[in-house]
Amino acid sequence: MHLPGTAAPPIAFAGSPIDRADHIRVDPAALGNLMNWRARVMNLDGLLPEFDEQGRLLWHTIADVPEDTELVFLGMMDDKAHFAPVPAEGASGPAMPRAWQVMQMLQPEDLAIYGGARSLVDWHARHRFCANCGAPTKPAKGGWQRNCEGCGAQHFPRTDPVTIMLVEHEDKLLLGRQPRFPPRMYSALAGFVEPGETIEEAVAREIHEEAGVRVRDVRYIASQPWPFPSQLMIGCTSVADDPELTIDETELDDARWFTRAELEEARAAGEHGTDLLYFPRPFAIAHHLIAWWLDR
Amino acid sequence: MHLPGTAAPPIAFAGSPIDRADHIRVDPAALGNLMNWRARVMNLDGLLPEFDEQGRLLWHTIADVPEDTELVFLGMMDDKAHFAPVPAEGASGPAMPRAWQVMQMLQPEDLAIYGGARSLVDWHARHRFCANCGAPTKPAKGGWQRNCEGCGAQHFPRTDPVTIMLVEHEDKLLLGRQPRFPPRMYSALAGFVEPGETIEEAVAREIHEEAGVRVRDVRYIASQPWPFPSQLMIGCTSVADDPELTIDETELDDARWFTRAELEEARAAGEHGTDLLYFPRPFAIAHHLIAWWLDR
Repeated sequence: MHLPGTAAPPIAFAGSPIDRADHIRVDPAALGNLMNWRARVMNLDGLLPEFDEQGRLLWHTIADVPEDTELVFLGMMDDKAHFAPVPAEGASGPAMPRAWQVMQMLQPEDLAIYGGARSLVDWHARHRFCANCGAPTKPAKGGWQRNCEGCGAQHFPRTDPVTIMLVEHEDKLLLGRQPRFPPRMYSALAGFVEPGETIEEAVAREIHEEAGVRVRDVRYIASQPWPFPSQLMIGCTSVADDPELTIDETELDDARWFTRAELEEARAAGEHGTDLLYFPRPFAIAHHLIAWWLDR
Repeated sequence: MHLPGTAAPPIAFAGSPIDRADHIRVDPAALGNLMNWRARVMNLDGLLPEFDEQGRLLWHTIADVPEDTELVFLGMMDDKAHFAPVPAEGASGPAMPRAWQVMQMLQPEDLAIYGGARSLVDWHARHRFCANCGAPTKPAKGGWQRNCEGCGAQHFPRTDPVTIMLVEHEDKLLLGRQPRFPPRMYSALAGFVEPGETIEEAVAREIHEEAGVRVRDVRYIASQPWPFPSQLMIGCTSVADDPELTIDETELDDARWFTRAELEEARAAGEHGTDLLYFPRPFAIAHHLIAWWLDR
């Protein structure tokens, strides 16, 4: 998926060619029949993928994986069933350096297949017990559900909506930096949507919390699945009338307004950035949002 | 929040006047100071609210609630801290008849406050144990987090993104009915966003799964928090070139194309509907999406 009107690359982790085939998930006999010698199992080392020099994911056959491996059904592709193994341990938290390398090296379609699989198997690894009663849970529906053996509660993979947003004021954009960012890197502000608010309300609340700015005219632009661990990034723009900033220093190291020229220069400078700004990487939806704003 | 260009009522559960005051959540001393005689505690009977004849929520003082009540911090309003009590039991699943009555009787702002509180306290009631290791968890940050006493995992309230979408073909809209709907009720198709897909991809997948239709030009229109138990409804439109339907009968009783005239007539008929169609209720975002399409 490309954003209309930009020359940016496709949105990372979007565009998986796998057919999720949800009618098969609910049919244990069909699922069993598909676990044959033709089936492919993603070659994962923990949560990281193995791939070849062309950036193509490597796959095992079912015979290659230990018999007690918990497999989740990703779907159908090339007339073959595709699975992924649940690792012994999951990982919450942001993308680590090795994951950033994976994003650079995998082909876009393979990155999308990997991202969806990663979120799903990581969820299983971290949800082996029932949040309602503490008893063990067992996978069901090809790995798209876990059922509690104690109280009978059903649990489903988590997808956490996060708003990520541009704020515009007099042809400038507000970007901020989190303490964990490399030097000179600024990006769009972001935050989880909470229970009881719309996307637009979450955008306005987050910007006010983090930067002390009130915004209007929130507009949705594009979304991205982000598998560290399972965010749905919801990219928006907004407009501020008063540019005065009050930065929440527990969330941000800094936030500031960048002119169009500063942003253009940083984008043109590519991966090394300018003295002022390291433009968000093309894997991040922030890259696409800023590019959309510059090119529109 | 209103949808531009429609005469529809505000979107139900949106527009809460509470300031979530997240800087207080992370400050146990400040939170403790606010739990005083001025604080207000939502008067809940399980997960349902008590309210007066004007549709205003009723509130207790902290002195009114048993000392061992688990309270979550909703935020600040009228210079007073507002809390809600966690019930003994939660409830997953769709809105029950009593909840539909509440939607009709509460004032819009009170409904928004109630909806956010309901999702949060219900999450606590159903997440007293750690999904990672099975040990008990304890609330933290004013009820916006639970921490595991065993493995140390942190857990956060769940918000599940759901796409709900119009499909347009030659000035007709595709609507479907779930088996649990009352007779003559049809609504927009809907489904959970899964790990590894964008909003637009989820819309296209769901429509194809449920109705066998391929769509293009997916556009975001509006969103709604829906507290049964904690959905973020993401309302979209899309366009189909080929109207032929293949209905997934495990998900839908029926789906069909409605003409503009049929929809106009059903809307004008109000809560009793026409012989053909009972227009979705104003509390549902489907109402707003169809109204937007008719009025645009």
